[in-house]
Amino acid sequence: MKDIQLRTLFRETEKYADQEIVVHGWVRTNRGSNKFGFIELNDGTFFKSVQVVYEAEFIDNFEEIAKVPVAAALKVKGDFVLTPNAKQPFEIKAKEVVVEADSASDYPLQKKRHSMEFLREIAHLRPRSNTFSAVFRIRSLVSYAIHKFFQENDFVYVHTPIVTGSDCEGAGEMFRITTLDMDNPPRMENDSIDYSQDFFGKETSLTVSGQLEAETFALAFRNVYTFGPTFRAENSNTARHASEFWMIEPEVAFADLSDNMDLAEAMIKYIIQYVLEHAPEEMEFFNKFMDKGLLDRLTALVNAEFARVTYTEAVELLKKSGKKFEYPVEWGIDLQTEHERYLTEEIYKKPVFVTDYPKEIKAFYMRLNDDNKTVAACDLLVPGVGEIIGGSQREERYDVLKARMDELGLDEKDYWWYMDLRRYGGVKHAGYGLGLERIIMYLTGMGNIRDVLPFPRTPKTAEF
Amino acid sequence: MKDIQLRTLFRETEKYADQEIVVHGWVRTNRGSNKFGFIELNDGTFFKSVQVVYEAEFIDNFEEIAKVPVAAALKVKGDFVLTPNAKQPFEIKAKEVVVEADSASDYPLQKKRHSMEFLREIAHLRPRSNTFSAVFRIRSLVSYAIHKFFQENDFVYVHTPIVTGSDCEGAGEMFRITTLDMDNPPRMENDSIDYSQDFFGKETSLTVSGQLEAETFALAFRNVYTFGPTFRAENSNTARHASEFWMIEPEVAFADLSDNMDLAEAMIKYIIQYVLEHAPEEMEFFNKFMDKGLLDRLTALVNAEFARVTYTEAVELLKKSGKKFEYPVEWGIDLQTEHERYLTEEIYKKPVFVTDYPKEIKAFYMRLNDDNKTVAACDLLVPGVGEIIGGSQREERYDVLKARMDELGLDEKDYWWYMDLRRYGGVKHAGYGLGLERIIMYLTGMGNIRDVLPFPRTPKTAEF
Repeated sequence: MKDIQLRTLFRETEKYADQEIVVHGWVRTNRGSNKFGFIELNDGTFFKSVQVVYEAEFIDNFEEIAKVPVAAALKVKGDFVLTPNAKQPFEIKAKEVVVEADSASDYPLQKKRHSMEFLREIAHLRPRSNTFSAVFRIRSLVSYAIHKFFQENDFVYVHTPIVTGSDCEGAGEMFRITTLDMDNPPRMENDSIDYSQDFFGKETSLTVSGQLEAETFALAFRNVYTFGPTFRAENSNTARHASEFWMIEPEVAFADLSDNMDLAEAMIKYIIQYVLEHAPEEMEFFNKFMDKGLLDRLTALVNAEFARVTYTEAVELLKKSGKKFEYPVEWGIDLQTEHERYLTEEIYKKPVFVTDYPKEIKAFYMRLNDDNKTVAACDLLVPGVGEIIGGSQREERYDVLKARMDELGLDEKDYWWYMDLRRYGGVKHAGYGLGLERIIMYLTGMGNIRDVLPFPRTPKTAEF
Repeated sequence: MKDIQLRTLFRETEKYADQEIVVHGWVRTNRGSNKFGFIELNDGTFFKSVQVVYEAEFIDNFEEIAKVPVAAALKVKGDFVLTPNAKQPFEIKAKEVVVEADSASDYPLQKKRHSMEFLREIAHLRPRSNTFSAVFRIRSLVSYAIHKFFQENDFVYVHTPIVTGSDCEGAGEMFRITTLDMDNPPRMENDSIDYSQDFFGKETSLTVSGQLEAETFALAFRNVYTFGPTFRAENSNTARHASEFWMIEPEVAFADLSDNMDLAEAMIKYIIQYVLEHAPEEMEFFNKFMDKGLLDRLTALVNAEFARVTYTEAVELLKKSGKKFEYPVEWGIDLQTEHERYLTEEIYKKPVFVTDYPKEIKAFYMRLNDDNKTVAACDLLVPGVGEIIGGSQREERYDVLKARMDELGLDEKDYWWYMDLRRYGGVKHAGYGLGLERIIMYLTGMGNIRDVLPFPRTPKTAEF
C-alpha cells in the first residue's frame, strides 16, 4: 500500500476521509495513558503534524509504541478521520504502527524553547524544529519564485564562475583558492611565490559578484540573471553579514535606470506574493511568533507603488527632518542604516528607491550622470530592514569608463574583456543585485543572517 | 513607443501584422545596394533574427546605415509585414533606423566558421554566435526544468555550503581556501602552519558534493534537492572534466534504491520534454549541425522504460558478448566508458540503471547489501554518453556504517553530525547526483564540457 505524504493530507483532506491510509513520519510528541496514546507525527512535507491515536485494543505493540521517543521514525497504517469539532482538522486511528528507526534518549531537540545560538550548534538537526522548518521551506520557495519570475519573462539564467582570476571586481575582500603546498610553496628566482605553478596557473579567488560576467551575457541575450553563491573575506561579525551567501544579479540590455527599478519592483512583489500564497502556514507562524506586523507590512508592500527620490533630495529631506542621527547627514556621505530606515519608515512609509549617488561612494562601472558628480545608481530601501537591493545603469561609453578607471588607478588591461563590451555594440544596460538572505530575513522577520543560511559560514565558523 | 522583443514577434506573429513597431537589436549581417539594404537583426531574446529592409527612399540616414558593421546595436522603427512566400516568415520595412552603439572593425566574431578553441578564447563574445546562443539558452532551460520538476513535487531546495571544513567527502581532490599570507604564514612552535589563524579558524576547502549535508535536510523535510557549484582539483585535461561544475543532488527519506531510480527516470524525462517544448528552434539547430540523430534519440528516451540490471548480471552480459574491450571485464572492476556505452547502446539500446556494485569501488556511505559484497548503488547509463547519474541508498544503520568507516580508516569524530543522523530517527533514505553539464552535453550533442560552461575553469585556465 503506497503511503501518503502529509502535505497531500492537508491539501486534499476531503479526498481521504474515512479511508484506510499509510503514512510515515517522525515523532514530535508522544503522550498517553495505559490504554491509549497520542502521537504528533510529522514527515517534513508540511509545516503541521498529524495526530495519531493509538489504543491498546487495536494495535499489537501498544507497550512498544507508548515508549517511542521523540525523533523516532514510524510507519502508521490506520483510518483517516475528519474531526471538525477538534483543534486539529483530522486524525489517524492507528491499526498498525511500525518503528522504522529508533532515536537515542539524548536527542537534543526536545519540546522546549532553545536559544538560537544553541540551535546553530546543531545545524544538522535544527530544520526539524518549527522555526527552521519554516525558514528553510521559505528559502526554497523564495529561490524558486525568483527563477519563476525571470523565466516567465524569458530571462536566461547564467552560471557566472565562482573561481575568479581577477581581483578587479572591487566589491570586497576575497578568499584565495590554491593547491600549492602552503608549507613550502614553489618560488621564483627573486624568492616570490611562483603562482604559475598553482592549479589555474595564476592567483585565483572566490567571486564577490557575477555582475561583470553577467554583462557579457546581457549583451548577447538582452535579459539575463545570475543566481549563485558569493563570498566576502571580511572579518565582520554582525547579524547581517556572512562570508558565504547567495546573490541574484539580473542584467538587461537596452535598459536604463528607470527600467531597472521597474524590474526590481516587479520582482520583489512577485516573490512576496508567491510566498504568501505557497506558505500560508509558515507565514502565519512568523507573524505570530517572530514579528507581529509582518503580514500587514508585506501586504502593504505588494500594494504600494514604490517611491523614487534622488540621493540629493533624500539628503535634503533627512537634514530638514530635524531628527538627530548618530552619523550626521551631509551631501557626499554614504547613507547609514539609520538614515535608510528613517527614509523608508518615517518619511515615505513604504519602499523607496534612492537614485543618483555621488560617484565617489559608488563603483567604477556605474554610469556617470550629466552633472559629472553623480552616477545612475539605485538602492531599494524597505521598512524594517533598510537596503535590500543595489543596482545601477552601467557605463557603456568606452571613453568615460576609461577615464573613471584611470582616476581610480584601475588598469584597462586587467579588464580587457569588459572593455571589449564597450567596443562591440555596447548599448546602454542596467542591472542590480539582490541578496537572497536579505529578502528571506525581510520575509520571515528572522533577525540574524546565520539563521536563514542552512550551514552559515562566518569568521572562525565553518562547521558541518 | 514601447519596443517589442523578437521572441514576442516570433511567438505572437499574427498580432503585429501590418503594424508599426519598434525593435532593438544587434546587426548580424548587413548587405545591400545603393538604393536599399537588408539587415539581419537579433536582440538575443530569440534564436532567429528578423530581417530589416531599409531603403534610401524611406530613411534619412541611408548612407550611415548602409555602412553599419556587424555587432553594432540599432533601434528600428518600421512596418511589420508578413512574408508567407519568403524564406523568413516576416520582415520589418524600416522608416527610422538609429545607431545606438557602434562596433569596432576588429570584431572577432565574423560570419564564418570559427574553431571551438578560438571561441573559448572569446568566451565573453561567443554567446552571440548561433551555437553558443543555443547552448546557453538550453543550459538555462535545463536548470529551470530541474527546479520546476522538484518544486512541483514539493521538494525543498537546500543551499549546501561551498566552503567546507571537512575533507571527508571523499569524492576527489580539493581546493584550499585561505586568507593567510602565503608568503609568510603564521606558524606554531613546532613550525607547522597555524591554521587556527586562518579565516575560518581551521583548514577549509571548496566542496566536492553537498550530499552529506543534504542528508541532514532530507531527514527533516523528507524530499530535498541541492543545485549548486562543486569543485575538483584534479589535473585531468579531458573533454568531460572541469574543475568547477554544477551538480544537482536530490535526497529522499523513507525511500529505497528502487524509489531512487523511479525519481531519476521521471526527472530525466521531464527535463528532456521541457527542453524539446521550450527550445524547438535550438534543438532543431543541434539536430542539424551537431548530431543528426539527436532528436530521434531524445524522443526515444522519453518514451522508453529504462532498463535495470545488477552489476553482477551486467558483467556477465559483457563477458558473454564476445566484444573485445580495451579494458577486460572481470567482476570487481569499475566499469569504463566503453563498457557502459556497450551496455546501453548495444545490449539494451536504451537507458539502463546498473545497480548493486562491489562495495570496494563505491563510497563508504552506500548501503551494504545482504550479500556483504555489494552496495545499493545505481548508475544511470544513456546511449551516446555513458554514465549520467550516480546514486545510492545510504547506509542508515549506525553499526554497519561505523564498521565500514573503520575498515576504510575514517574517523567517526570527523563525521559526528553525519553519525548523529543515524542515532536520531535515521530511516532509510536515498539520493543521487546529476552533473548539469553532462545532461546539457547529452541534450545538445556538444562534445566538450568547456563548451557548455559559460566561463570554464580547467587546469591552468581561469580567464574572465
